[in-house]
Amino acid sequence: MSIGLFGFGTVGSGVYQIALSRGLAQRIKAIGVKSPSKARPEGLPFTLDATTILDDAEITTVVEAISDAEAGYRIVTEALRRGKHVVSASKAVIAAHLPELHALAARHGVSLRYEAAVGGAIPVLDVIDRYLAHEPITAVRGIVNGTTNYILTRMEREGLDFDTALAEAQRLGFAEAEPTADVEGLDARNKLVILSYHAFGDYLPPTAISTTGIRGVTAADIADARARGGAIKLVAEARCASCGSLSLQVSPQFVSSDDPLYSTAFERNAIVVETAWGGPFLLGGRGAGALPTGTAVTFDLEHIDQAYTVTRRMALAELVA
Amino acid sequence: MSIGLFGFGTVGSGVYQIALSRGLAQRIKAIGVKSPSKARPEGLPFTLDATTILDDAEITTVVEAISDAEAGYRIVTEALRRGKHVVSASKAVIAAHLPELHALAARHGVSLRYEAAVGGAIPVLDVIDRYLAHEPITAVRGIVNGTTNYILTRMEREGLDFDTALAEAQRLGFAEAEPTADVEGLDARNKLVILSYHAFGDYLPPTAISTTGIRGVTAADIADARARGGAIKLVAEARCASCGSLSLQVSPQFVSSDDPLYSTAFERNAIVVETAWGGPFLLGGRGAGALPTGTAVTFDLEHIDQAYTVTRRMALAELVA
Repeated sequence: MSIGLFGFGTVGSGVYQIALSRGLAQRIKAIGVKSPSKARPEGLPFTLDATTILDDAEITTVVEAISDAEAGYRIVTEALRRGKHVVSASKAVIAAHLPELHALAARHGVSLRYEAAVGGAIPVLDVIDRYLAHEPITAVRGIVNGTTNYILTRMEREGLDFDTALAEAQRLGFAEAEPTADVEGLDARNKLVILSYHAFGDYLPPTAISTTGIRGVTAADIADARARGGAIKLVAEARCASCGSLSLQVSPQFVSSDDPLYSTAFERNAIVVETAWGGPFLLGGRGAGALPTGTAVTFDLEHIDQAYTVTRRMALAELVA
Repeated sequence: MSIGLFGFGTVGSGVYQIALSRGLAQRIKAIGVKSPSKARPEGLPFTLDATTILDDAEITTVVEAISDAEAGYRIVTEALRRGKHVVSASKAVIAAHLPELHALAARHGVSLRYEAAVGGAIPVLDVIDRYLAHEPITAVRGIVNGTTNYILTRMEREGLDFDTALAEAQRLGFAEAEPTADVEGLDARNKLVILSYHAFGDYLPPTAISTTGIRGVTAADIADARARGGAIKLVAEARCASCGSLSLQVSPQFVSSDDPLYSTAFERNAIVVETAWGGPFLLGGRGAGALPTGTAVTFDLEHIDQAYTVTRRMALAELVA
């Protein structure tokens, strides 16, 4: 396996760091980046020329981990057209073009995977696709945006109002300077589109989904929820009512203390999969960050090429000494 | 795939029910049971003769789901020796004989799987084995016994003492008339042995593990934990301190409200996998019951024979109409 990595931000650097720790960094043949001036580690195979990577016949697999959605879409489609496997971490790209991208991958006989795009490190797509392949899924509900969950947790625990909690989240790096995509629920909506596609096999584009963010949640709402023994969470929910019709929405919801989502605090993510027989299943973990997303991308790479795997025992002996 | 099912109690009937719902019941060629007199559904291929099943060359896969550990051990080993794949739900059998059983399976070139034996429906072994194959695991901590968690939850929420809560659990079917294996932590210990084997590749027999049950937990202990903002949980824990030495124990522990295990209430199970890069991961769900354990066994059957899978879309269209 020879890998072309696009992007060296949070996700890309996490992927590289894990490959390095596992002695597999030489598999990353090229790293495509945009800015010529940014400070980067020495000795890595950086290039500003995306086409060189895409046209390199030796590169069998492309990892797309860039923040620009339009450029991400171009890279993913061009890589698939050239018969390369693709692992993407870009939820906006994947959510907006799911059917087209899967059709393209099928036509060229390659894999398209994006575990990191939903719930960061949480293996929710793998569990839905494989473990629950035999089970009718009735609903998927999740806290899939760490920024809003962080803000709501600070509001709840300290009685802060929204603006103060947002400013705190920005100061500590849990929210971006331009927080719209998170705060308005657009990021959660993209993840819901992907979850729903895997759980129910049906595609609804992001723009078709009823979406309410957390700007309107007041300190009084949260105090009220607490008085009722629960909390307000931004929940992304896909429900298969009698399974003829699929209902998707992102909205602030009252979550009781018995709900498995209740204790998902701060920037953590969690997803509940409700099923006809074995569920509900709860999957929780880190929704963002270099190593969590790097872990999910690494799993996708291993799934594509089992040779990318080293055994648990080797990993332990060599890495956690 | 032709299946010989041993046992038609909670697990066995769940496996059968799921196969029936999926139109795959004809794959279960024989069902071995012990008692000739018990009332059972009509028209199913019951037999009292285990040897007929084991000697049937058409049967490629044995599901072992009986409560008698000695008989279970005999069935599992005899099936493996005859070159049959084995799916077992018997944690006591698996925990006591892990290395021998895996060696036997390897020698005969067959699969041995037991996802249902730990955490019921929760896909924890699959996540550890596959998703986390590349990640150094540093600890596994879990609430893996529903009976004791049910008792502790009732004690906590209603101020009951242990004996009253146990009697309640027995009355409602969450504890057996002979509750020793659960209450003394022996069941949790078996599951910990299995978890630790998969997470760290090392086998410690159940008898080598420091084990304290919940008989000594008083209403005062629980009130005290609550006053400190947490709860008492029976935690099974394997920790890889600097990874030279493995430390395993089952004991009642104080769990703070920020701990992902905290909100695992009543009979629910949950397991936290701590890792070097992407974790902690939280996996929660139903630890027992016919359909939850049936789901885990069904997944193992699918893993052994992909032909046992039907697609999500087919499953939805046919089953959840």
